[in-house]
Amino acid sequence: MNNYPIDHVAIAVRSIQESTKIFETITGCACSVIEELPIQDVNVAFFGSLELIEPRSTHGVIGRFIERNGPGLHHIAYRVPDILTAIEEFEEQGFETIDNRPRPGARGHQIVFLNPKTTGNVLIELVQQS
Amino acid sequence: MNNYPIDHVAIAVRSIQESTKIFETITGCACSVIEELPIQDVNVAFFGSLELIEPRSTHGVIGRFIERNGPGLHHIAYRVPDILTAIEEFEEQGFETIDNRPRPGARGHQIVFLNPKTTGNVLIELVQQS
Repeated sequence: MNNYPIDHVAIAVRSIQESTKIFETITGCACSVIEELPIQDVNVAFFGSLELIEPRSTHGVIGRFIERNGPGLHHIAYRVPDILTAIEEFEEQGFETIDNRPRPGARGHQIVFLNPKTTGNVLIELVQQS
Repeated sequence: MNNYPIDHVAIAVRSIQESTKIFETITGCACSVIEELPIQDVNVAFFGSLELIEPRSTHGVIGRFIERNGPGLHHIAYRVPDILTAIEEFEEQGFETIDNRPRPGARGHQIVFLNPKTTGNVLIELVQQS
């Protein structure tokens, strides 16, 4: 059994700046520094255990998500102590990862996404803190 | 500042029974008893801090959500010590509640939803444990 804690819940928004007041109030946590991740075509910021993700263009993954669904809940991230071991465990349990190997995510952490086709259409991220 | 802990993250599924293996494996938590909530036209079950919600009919809120979006992330619930005080606080901060007053939710808890028009399109539930 995995039993990993939730690291964060991520929300796609059109604009972090325009959403800051709402999510600072809901979470009671000040907005972190906004981190630019041009390779993923997004900027992200954390409000406690909520992550806001804004698109840097309309043709990236988050830009297209918002175009299709509007802003809203995007994924759940579980914190794992060792991402390579966790990938192996999840693959043995019948899940697929999207990239097969970890890549750098926000805050310098190592991340991987499970293929939502194998998780009942819920996007799940695994995060190993750096 | 509110700073309430996340009580659970809820996922709309077509069938709790057919999703049980996936979410038991992801969370490492055994499925709770499935609770029938005919007034809300849903059945729910908990896997640690994940709640699965299945529609009891196609015309209820969750049935229509799944018809529109497919299964997926539905809402985030924050645990509050006193729901009447929390409603007052959130309303003073400019949020609206959907029902104006708490109602019984899963596990006998008192719950209320914030109007997603006031929360950047993210459905937020407040839960007072009974």
